[in-house]
Amino acid sequence: MNWGEQVASRRQRVHEQRPLVHHITNLVVTNLTANVTLAIGASPVMAYAREEVADMARLAQAVVLNMGTLTGDVVEAMLLAGKAANNAGIPVVFDPVGAGATPFRTRTAQKIIKELHIDILRGNASEIASIGGFGGHTKGVDAAGAPARVAEMVKQVARDLNTVVAVTGATDYISDGERLIAVDNGHPLLTFVTGTGCSATSIIAAFRAVEEDGVTASTAALAYYGLAAERAAAVSQGPASFQVALLDTLYNLAGEELARGVKIRLL
Amino acid sequence: MNWGEQVASRRQRVHEQRPLVHHITNLVVTNLTANVTLAIGASPVMAYAREEVADMARLAQAVVLNMGTLTGDVVEAMLLAGKAANNAGIPVVFDPVGAGATPFRTRTAQKIIKELHIDILRGNASEIASIGGFGGHTKGVDAAGAPARVAEMVKQVARDLNTVVAVTGATDYISDGERLIAVDNGHPLLTFVTGTGCSATSIIAAFRAVEEDGVTASTAALAYYGLAAERAAAVSQGPASFQVALLDTLYNLAGEELARGVKIRLL
Amino acid sequence: MNWGEQVASRRQRVHEQRPLVHHITNLVVTNLTANVTLAIGASPVMAYAREEVADMARLAQAVVLNMGTLTGDVVEAMLLAGKAANNAGIPVVFDPVGAGATPFRTRTAQKIIKELHIDILRGNASEIASIGGFGGHTKGVDAAGAPARVAEMVKQVARDLNTVVAVTGATDYISDGERLIAVDNGHPLLTFVTGTGCSATSIIAAFRAVEEDGVTASTAALAYYGLAAERAAAVSQGPASFQVALLDTLYNLAGEELARGVKIRLL
Repeated sequence: MNWGEQVASRRQRVHEQRPLVHHITNLVVTNLTANVTLAIGASPVMAYAREEVADMARLAQAVVLNMGTLTGDVVEAMLLAGKAANNAGIPVVFDPVGAGATPFRTRTAQKIIKELHIDILRGNASEIASIGGFGGHTKGVDAAGAPARVAEMVKQVARDLNTVVAVTGATDYISDGERLIAVDNGHPLLTFVTGTGCSATSIIAAFRAVEEDGVTASTAALAYYGLAAERAAAVSQGPASFQVALLDTLYNLAGEELARGVKIRLL
Repeated sequence: MNWGEQVASRRQRVHEQRPLVHHITNLVVTNLTANVTLAIGASPVMAYAREEVADMARLAQAVVLNMGTLTGDVVEAMLLAGKAANNAGIPVVFDPVGAGATPFRTRTAQKIIKELHIDILRGNASEIASIGGFGGHTKGVDAAGAPARVAEMVKQVARDLNTVVAVTGATDYISDGERLIAVDNGHPLLTFVTGTGCSATSIIAAFRAVEEDGVTASTAALAYYGLAAERAAAVSQGPASFQVALLDTLYNLAGEELARGVKIRLL
Repeated sequence: MNWGEQVASRRQRVHEQRPLVHHITNLVVTNLTANVTLAIGASPVMAYAREEVADMARLAQAVVLNMGTLTGDVVEAMLLAGKAANNAGIPVVFDPVGAGATPFRTRTAQKIIKELHIDILRGNASEIASIGGFGGHTKGVDAAGAPARVAEMVKQVARDLNTVVAVTGATDYISDGERLIAVDNGHPLLTFVTGTGCSATSIIAAFRAVEEDGVTASTAALAYYGLAAERAAAVSQGPASFQVALLDTLYNLAGEELARGVKIRLL
């Protein structure tokens, strides 16, 4: 199978298997990421209470931990859910929103990575650089025109942390420390809607639930999502109609139309 | 008055009386249910703090308690608001989201039902089965092709708990333990948008604020909502444009057009 | 420069400087206000934890404190963020949602105003009346047909509290206790979408980040927002398509088209 066919087949599996994705996520994107998860044919559950997160994680086929609006209670819930998932062999996808912005976030991200086995780490270049100890160079890493440095950083962090790293941006990079893949699908309007990164994380988690290989799952998810964004932008008047069209397109995009549109490069 | 006229007249009353509906609800649907409440012409207030929920409940014409993203603090707030509403004769509508999924949720739902007088209990078949002690058969109750069993279960739980029960699904069932009514309005796209069940609960609460009889209020609310979903689906490209069209249609649908479209059966 | 040119130039500055606006806001509008902030070209960050709010506030060019869904923890976070902003000379915009509705809210609003320096206070007439001690007359102040009384109240509260007050309604009033300005842009559909007042506050904060004078910033923000609402209403079928069109229009509206449409009166 070529990449296009692989993407379409994983998207089809999500549709058929309807994996349950347990989210412990932030207040800004709770509604959006639940709707994105539904639009792609998976099943979301959002549950935060210490009293139930371990039970809920064990019911799921993938767990998303997103630290966008952290509090102490939420961190505790993430650790409980993550450990339950780890013990049950359920994949955990971690989105370290804002790592590097405040000491509390950086510290919390490091604690989660230390105490849990993370299957896939999804962030933007700054966040991943901060976690990987490239923090002093965050601005440089973020800067346009340095894609080669971002790609190398992704591979290095994946190797150091022994996980799959997916960094989203104008070009997305995915690596497990050995393989390094670039996805060129996407659209600038994604940066004018809050939670589009968090939505990428949710889609990656749903794909990981139906595909053991984290690199394949992340690559397929990001190409599908990026292509949906391109199609949505073509019929939008601004960021809000873009968001509506993005979810509609995720719901409708499949099969050959999806397979033909993906832009994936093995680096 | 036939059913169509009754539905249209209750919808008109909501529009004229603009009842204040106090919600203690979950993080996923807070924005959506506030917007649904506004779209139908009622007035939402979302308030959670122990320090004020009793005061706020007493200002309202109906109170919604929804346990979608429970924490210990929220349970305490629900009990305070519910007791204040009970003492003031203000109707309480309870949505036991996810009852049966984890022990914490099932236990909390039972606690709320035991400590408060619930005027209307709104859920899907699994949730109501779990609360009513049909929990062992949840899967069977949920299964398509067993509508007669769901209908009987709704009537039985209503009788056992001495409340009005409204179960939503492909067909909605409403019962007070004596009367049993089916509503056939609705559309499958409702299952691809998060919070559409919670939105049904909000509309039921607004209708109950202007109609003493819980069976009539629930039936009218669900027929109106289901018909709006049918009309919205006809002009949508996917789940996100459907959600937009659903709220627009709730805002616009009234009078004869509403009366003619409802599908209500007395069983 | 006439008012139209001033509005367009401040909107352009927001677009160019992309100010970071730190929000501590309510659960109902978190997603909407983040998206509004992005749509106008600014950059939102939502962070609530005691452990980081002071750090985050110091990174921002403006801080929004919105008490829509208060809890004790959130109040504490607001005071920490507000003090950090005050010490660093970063403007603080306060939205006292629901002040006057419950004793807890009124008390909290007064505490925040007493302990922090508020650069701009944005609310509806009832909320500002309650804070300014006109509470006994809330209904009267709110009543249509008494715009002159609202205008006087705004000026009086601004003088008493030594801050800029912006009251939104059919006509918006802005005063620093000396100058008094009315903005006639806007549309009734704004009252059918939750969080449109909170969104006004976010836009005011972004404009204040690029314009030292709070009266000019508030006036420009509200005229721009109100004109966007007029344009959006003209292409909407109801409140949900209106919300989508409102954000799209905020994203697109600029330059001469904006300058020509504003309706601002010096009283």
